[in-house]
Amino acid sequence: MSESEDLIASRAKERGAASFNVRDLTYFLDNGKQNTERNESIMLQFERDPLFNIKTFNLDLKGQREVSFQRITKLAAYNNNDDEQGIRARMNILSISDPGTYTRVGVHYGLFLQTLRALGTPQQFQYWVSKGAGSLSKFFGCFGMTELAHGSNVAGLQTVANFNPSDDTFTINTPNLGATKWWIGGAAHSATHCVVYARLVVKGKDYGVKNFVVQLRNDNGELLPGVAIGDIGKKMGRDGIDNGWIQFTNVKIPRFNMLSKYAQVDSRGKVTVPEFQQLGYSALVMGRVSMVVDSYNIGKKFITIALRYATVRRQFGKDSDGLEKKIIDYTHHRRRLFPFLATIYAFNSSALEITRVQDETLKLLAGGDKNVKDVIPNLKDLFSLSAGLKAFATWETAKLIDEARQSCGGHGYSSYNGFAQGYNDWVVQCTWEGDNNVLSLSCGRALIQNYLAVEKGERVGDFTKYLKVEDNDDFVLRTQDLEYIEKIINAWEIVSKRLVQSSTAKFKQFRKETNGDLELAFEKVASNRFNIAKIHTKLVILKTFHQRVSHAPENLKSILSLLLQLYALHITSENISQFYSFNIVKGSDFLENLNYKIDEINELLRPNIIGLTDAFNLSDFMIGSQIGKKNGDIYENYFKFVTDNNTEIKPHYYDSLMKPFFERSLKPTDNEEVQENEEDDE
Amino acid sequence: MSESEDLIASRAKERGAASFNVRDLTYFLDNGKQNTERNESIMLQFERDPLFNIKTFNLDLKGQREVSFQRITKLAAYNNNDDEQGIRARMNILSISDPGTYTRVGVHYGLFLQTLRALGTPQQFQYWVSKGAGSLSKFFGCFGMTELAHGSNVAGLQTVANFNPSDDTFTINTPNLGATKWWIGGAAHSATHCVVYARLVVKGKDYGVKNFVVQLRNDNGELLPGVAIGDIGKKMGRDGIDNGWIQFTNVKIPRFNMLSKYAQVDSRGKVTVPEFQQLGYSALVMGRVSMVVDSYNIGKKFITIALRYATVRRQFGKDSDGLEKKIIDYTHHRRRLFPFLATIYAFNSSALEITRVQDETLKLLAGGDKNVKDVIPNLKDLFSLSAGLKAFATWETAKLIDEARQSCGGHGYSSYNGFAQGYNDWVVQCTWEGDNNVLSLSCGRALIQNYLAVEKGERVGDFTKYLKVEDNDDFVLRTQDLEYIEKIINAWEIVSKRLVQSSTAKFKQFRKETNGDLELAFEKVASNRFNIAKIHTKLVILKTFHQRVSHAPENLKSILSLLLQLYALHITSENISQFYSFNIVKGSDFLENLNYKIDEINELLRPNIIGLTDAFNLSDFMIGSQIGKKNGDIYENYFKFVTDNNTEIKPHYYDSLMKPFFERSLKPTDNEEVQENEEDDE
Ligand SMILES: Cc1cc2nc3c(=O)[nH]c(=O)nc-3n(C[C@H](O)[C@H](O)[C@H](O)COP(=O)(O)OP(=O)(O)OC[C@H]3O[C@@H](n4cnc5c(N)ncnc54)[C@H](O)[C@@H]3O)c2cc1C
Ligand SMILES: Cc1cc2nc3c(=O)[nH]c(=O)nc-3n(C[C@H](O)[C@H](O)[C@H](O)COP(=O)(O)OP(=O)(O)OC[C@H]3O[C@@H](n4cnc5c(N)ncnc54)[C@H](O)[C@@H]3O)c2cc1C
Repeated sequence: MSESEDLIASRAKERGAASFNVRDLTYFLDNGKQNTERNESIMLQFERDPLFNIKTFNLDLKGQREVSFQRITKLAAYNNNDDEQGIRARMNILSISDPGTYTRVGVHYGLFLQTLRALGTPQQFQYWVSKGAGSLSKFFGCFGMTELAHGSNVAGLQTVANFNPSDDTFTINTPNLGATKWWIGGAAHSATHCVVYARLVVKGKDYGVKNFVVQLRNDNGELLPGVAIGDIGKKMGRDGIDNGWIQFTNVKIPRFNMLSKYAQVDSRGKVTVPEFQQLGYSALVMGRVSMVVDSYNIGKKFITIALRYATVRRQFGKDSDGLEKKIIDYTHHRRRLFPFLATIYAFNSSALEITRVQDETLKLLAGGDKNVKDVIPNLKDLFSLSAGLKAFATWETAKLIDEARQSCGGHGYSSYNGFAQGYNDWVVQCTWEGDNNVLSLSCGRALIQNYLAVEKGERVGDFTKYLKVEDNDDFVLRTQDLEYIEKIINAWEIVSKRLVQSSTAKFKQFRKETNGDLELAFEKVASNRFNIAKIHTKLVILKTFHQRVSHAPENLKSILSLLLQLYALHITSENISQFYSFNIVKGSDFLENLNYKIDEINELLRPNIIGLTDAFNLSDFMIGSQIGKKNGDIYENYFKFVTDNNTEIKPHYYDSLMKPFFERSLKPTDNEEVQENEEDDE
Repeated sequence: MSESEDLIASRAKERGAASFNVRDLTYFLDNGKQNTERNESIMLQFERDPLFNIKTFNLDLKGQREVSFQRITKLAAYNNNDDEQGIRARMNILSISDPGTYTRVGVHYGLFLQTLRALGTPQQFQYWVSKGAGSLSKFFGCFGMTELAHGSNVAGLQTVANFNPSDDTFTINTPNLGATKWWIGGAAHSATHCVVYARLVVKGKDYGVKNFVVQLRNDNGELLPGVAIGDIGKKMGRDGIDNGWIQFTNVKIPRFNMLSKYAQVDSRGKVTVPEFQQLGYSALVMGRVSMVVDSYNIGKKFITIALRYATVRRQFGKDSDGLEKKIIDYTHHRRRLFPFLATIYAFNSSALEITRVQDETLKLLAGGDKNVKDVIPNLKDLFSLSAGLKAFATWETAKLIDEARQSCGGHGYSSYNGFAQGYNDWVVQCTWEGDNNVLSLSCGRALIQNYLAVEKGERVGDFTKYLKVEDNDDFVLRTQDLEYIEKIINAWEIVSKRLVQSSTAKFKQFRKETNGDLELAFEKVASNRFNIAKIHTKLVILKTFHQRVSHAPENLKSILSLLLQLYALHITSENISQFYSFNIVKGSDFLENLNYKIDEINELLRPNIIGLTDAFNLSDFMIGSQIGKKNGDIYENYFKFVTDNNTEIKPHYYDSLMKPFFERSLKPTDNEEVQENEEDDE
């Protein structure tokens, strides 16, 4: 057999080894056959469309921006022809195949329009839709919150919207350089309008930050008077989207342009502020939970590449077939990758479960005032949980991409194998829509507040109910318990509860020591807060994964349970110090055995690896990696791509630069030459 | 005060707060005033040289390659005029300011020439130097080890060098696609010659992989007959260097071109193989230890940016001056960054100490046969240690860059602030010159072998001598012990020793169970091996840091000791599960107190942060980050750079693409339109 035939046959054999029905698992992951089929159709449309096949490796910033806009025009045409679910599925798929373009159009739909819907009155929303906001017709929105010197602390933004009762307008101003709107996606090239976050000032009084729709450009793409905009330029990734800066110098807008579902200003300058601020949360919650879905989408792509590569790449050793061993057959290599595979399955289940809970909660909320009060604990719970979820899911995915790249050795570093761009595009997810560290700390703060509520006998949400459980001082997790998922979950609940408990105790102590200074006390337990946010979030992911696996179709239960167990043991091993510190586990044998147990599960998973990655059902087009393609013929695929895309034989600077350099004189210059005679003279 | 004045004044104040002499600390880091002054002169030359100031953000692959070669021509001119130490210092500085170009010329000097020196006879070395290899005159070398399908396992390479006794030549062949030389730095554009790793075959017998000098191109830059070369193309980073692939089809070279210091073939085809294979190690050891220096060099740049930013960026809260709080004043933010600062100081000290030991060892080795046997344990020790050092130092630095970027929020994601390119350039260090995981596992294997030697009463090297120490079963590290560095080191030695001991015991058990199958037994303790490599390496870094701090000038001891303590506590907290598992530490209070103790040290370090980063003595040119500049005026610096480098006002595709899109008809196409009448008819 030739090398290629060998590789292809080997992949086919691995593919045949799965102990479960791969198609059924795809339906499980996609939450239904219908979704799978819809996705397949969209992937095929992209794959066949020349516009989505342009290679962007060597494009500069300008080129990337242009290709991205071209794709947006086509996307609009596709969407025009489709229903809500189809549009959502298409956006999901675009988020995998072209994250830059996805964000560019996503800012309009996801941030601009959603803000209008969430914070504008129905009339306002309708008005802007009638102007073309719904169809991207003469209209492209952007979202202007962040400023050059101000970010996470939204309440501290400095752009001003001053009310003018004389003509029923606001004047928008950027008071200083630091208040320049910064990072605004779509502002540099695309946007005609912006939702500007600015301080509402009426008759000299500052009412805090509110939202205002400001037109930026006219129908000819020219900036309106008083609006200064520039491109922020080159970024680590997602260069398809045109992030820009905006400065406003006395830009007048009608009073109508202030989004007024909650806060209102009337024509005489009377300001009304809302009662239930919390209602604005729900949009944020959905946005954050959707980032677990993003994490799943991106994670599945890169773990597929790495695991496919590992089943054909050989290195060292001797296998039964006399060849070098496949790297997937090294204990340590499995240990690096399989837990990430389990994590990605966990993200899928967890996101679906939490979305279900969220939808139920929001439905109750929409049910009217009577329900609102009942739902508040769950809403708060979801809100702080969503912060932790967003943070730890996006971080884990960044780690996954990096580990997956390293697991492919040198070939992981080639731009043609996907990881480089993939990582660079991804990592901004750890920063935007809430910096991960800020979110984690706020999740930790909420957990302490929850525990204070528990102590006072108040209601807490469903995800934190376990904090109430009486814990058993003698609880010990032993090696043999590692077989039982319920035992492990139980141990996690105890650890999480004790950590929250002791963090709260510390917090109370510090509050006393600082004479009740709440902020200072919270600040002093910062490392506790971060820690409990992590443990609580991972526990919730574990529990929701478990939940969904228990309702899985019978023929998938055994493989899913194996992944669940691996996930459980993996996160336990990563956080084992907490278990030791509370004497939940004991002795060095336990840790060693936990590690061996993970090796054992990995051994069981091994024959199913290609099946488990195939189940993600990504076409070669979506994978976008020469060493990650389905057929396994990695070296031919990769070599062909490299030679097709690099055709220059002699460098274009050979004659101008290289030849003169190689043939230069090595004689010293007049500056270097030592005049021997003169020296001798002295 | 204006915003700018405010920032500049604030930075100046922070700068004045250092409790030590910053200049003295720079001398300490640079290992002497002379070195500092040399570095300053070189940095200034680069900074003033227009060639080194070209901005490469928007250059495509071709452009980057060209700029890189231009810089090499200039570098050669600088080097021509300088001594060994000057050249080395210049290369070090280039490695910070332009890693791509550094690698491109480094492959010639560091890999090609060093291999000739290490593996060629003196005559061979002289011969190639006389051909121009020493001066890059009509000569540029590359290093051809890796193949498309073969990497870490050098013994498994498949390129063939077949000896032809008839005309005293070898024929070099690439037998199949997988044996294509791959990733070869400099091959695509620059190289005239290559050291090719190929299997020596004489009269049908395979003698394993040896080294052969093969000319690739003629004086006109054209490929020689039988040599096929192509560009590997776009990479995650370091696009300045032209990595290429090479295929040989019956390329004949004289027998003289086989490097023959150790293995030799005479004209009749008689092969001699060397006795002391280990001697080849020394070059590898030096290369790996130098990557701790690289880690220091790159790490200091990015931690400087992050910490400078943290002392001016404000977010949330209220400070005593009524402004928002500086982010450096958040406990958690310190916790994320200060330990990395300590780590970078540790790398500096550790690299200097280990280099000293290495130089001594190699000197003894060079002393002649009698010494060689005595030195072998230390050489082996250094060899396996260097594997661990390379792996964990380069990983830690990758983590540092990523954390530093995240610590700058959104601005960390801009290409103008350094992190994006910095990370992409850096991370290949975890893969090349020995994949980090492969190296860690081999370090772990050596530790087990060391322990077996200890058990047999054999000699081991100085760095592993602690494995012999009788350990004290009752040893406990308590909170109050965290003040004493010797106590902490002691605890680390005990933990490391016990881990190596129990890993060895497991290894022996598995060897029995597998009927003496050594490889299988080592494979089964893979996670142990990885783990002990990590602990041993961190312990050695800690001890060598301690060593050098104890010999530091008196006026620096107090600040250095604080960094040392922080480093010690930080790595302890990161690896605390091992301490718990052996009952070296106990209870949840210990962990909590350890965390608070770290917070306390951070509080003490706080006023010295600008001083500690200034001590790295990198000019703004070297920092290459708008938010990392010395004067603290981050927003002006950054805004100016963004506006200077992004001057397009209307996108170049507005008329061709945007306007038609915005003005498109929203009427359905003929494919979409439903013919109402016909439907009604049915
Ligand atoms: C590519 C990209 C696109 C973007 N698109 C948009 C957009 O379209 N519209 C828009 O409005 N914004 C946009 N943003 C901005 C983004 O939302 C912000 O960057 C993000 O919210 C983080 O805020 P920041 O950058 O100000 O970071 P900061 O809040 O300044 O944080 C800096 C660092 O300080 C730390 N920190 C801050 N506060 C605390 C605390 N209390 N305790 C401990 N640590 C703390 C953080 O963890 C972080 O590491 C975009 C950003 C990027 C990079
Ligand atoms: C930018 C760049 C420049 C380079 N320049 C050169 C050059 O100039 N000349 C040259 O000769 N080479 C060069 N290389 C090649 C480089 O040295 C190799 O990529 C590196 O040695 C790793 O080998 P590999 O890629 O074959 O990885 P592999 O050895 O195939 O490793 C793949 C994965 O398998 C794992 N693995 C392998 N064996 C084991 C095992 N026994 N147990 C557990 N896990 C295992 C590894 O940890 C890794 O994650 C370059 C590479 C790059 C990316």
